[in-house]
Amino acid sequence: MLKRLLKRSEYDALEQRYRTQYFNSIVGHKNICLIGTKDFQDRTNLAIFNSLVHIGSNPPLLGIIFRPDSVQRHTYENILSTKEYTVNLIAESDIAAAHQTAARYLREQSEFDQTGLDAEYLKGFHAPLVASSPIAIGVAFRNNIAIPLNGTNLVIGEVQWIKYPEEIVAPDGFADLTKAGIVGCIGLDAYTRGTLVQRFEYAKPDKPPRIKS
Amino acid sequence: MLKRLLKRSEYDALEQRYRTQYFNSIVGHKNICLIGTKDFQDRTNLAIFNSLVHIGSNPPLLGIIFRPDSVQRHTYENILSTKEYTVNLIAESDIAAAHQTAARYLREQSEFDQTGLDAEYLKGFHAPLVASSPIAIGVAFRNNIAIPLNGTNLVIGEVQWIKYPEEIVAPDGFADLTKAGIVGCIGLDAYTRGTLVQRFEYAKPDKPPRIKS
Repeated sequence: MLKRLLKRSEYDALEQRYRTQYFNSIVGHKNICLIGTKDFQDRTNLAIFNSLVHIGSNPPLLGIIFRPDSVQRHTYENILSTKEYTVNLIAESDIAAAHQTAARYLREQSEFDQTGLDAEYLKGFHAPLVASSPIAIGVAFRNNIAIPLNGTNLVIGEVQWIKYPEEIVAPDGFADLTKAGIVGCIGLDAYTRGTLVQRFEYAKPDKPPRIKS
Repeated sequence: MLKRLLKRSEYDALEQRYRTQYFNSIVGHKNICLIGTKDFQDRTNLAIFNSLVHIGSNPPLLGIIFRPDSVQRHTYENILSTKEYTVNLIAESDIAAAHQTAARYLREQSEFDQTGLDAEYLKGFHAPLVASSPIAIGVAFRNNIAIPLNGTNLVIGEVQWIKYPEEIVAPDGFADLTKAGIVGCIGLDAYTRGTLVQRFEYAKPDKPPRIKS
């Protein structure tokens, strides 16, 4: 394929919507999930995020990048006040409803009601999970780190529980998300189905790459 | 599918390697990329990361989570000293070589030489890019944010240039990574091929989800 080199000055000159679409998609395949929260007036909220990042396994920590002045504000405020939220992976059959949670609904309008996704609760946990989500993760807020460069925040939480289909987990602990119909995304509005190409053994300097069978 | 609820106490009791595999994969599909650097002694380094995260589009900012005491140390040190690095997306034909860069090579052993991936340079940019990468991004270091919870760091850089195949970009700016054979990943060792399921129009509260054609 013929390559183009886009310099920063050319990037900055791109039309704004084009530039946002371009940059969000050109950086690679992404995670996509729904964050479920509930405020102290029992108003639930559900919002879609593609900035989940693994911070560590022991303890199990997950980060999310927030733009606090956006439609994500309700989620952000609920996390900071109630300290609990759920991370819900998305089934291919739910992508239209999941995408719709990005609309600017009022605080009084729950995205669960508006999109038809059902909420479910675990005893003792404040935030709702998405009933149809193949994998739901309960998270307790731990840290809110400001990123002064552009006014975003990295919100870090510690996993409290994970609800998942046992049959997708291999004997070594690997969860094959493709067996549960979980989608990934490209950019701001494209949902992707993943197919497993290959697993590899732990890489060692004195051995060539070995396919894991 | 029958669901299991794994509580935190059960998670903590899992065998360590199983737990790491499990947690890294259960959290969703991920980005996977190679970070290219070169120190001031002209020793190149290439390392695989699955923690790239979008920080913002204007200016274009990318973050990576580092575990500085691991095999990623050479990359981390080179970024902090030279202030330049490349983010290279991975073609399906390169996954074995890309995975092999995770091996603990010595500082004197370039992962380019060890894995057979070719380095390429852009005039005026210190760090090497991966010649066979469908999309390569030149990044200037901006910020290193400590995450005291577990001793990791969020390294943020500002994009300087992007080399990409023009034909994968739609008229609205969307880059269809599936047309360039770019892989995603699950967990620590599984590489995935993405298929586009659907794109949607910008979500609005007064309109149902609309498929983008």
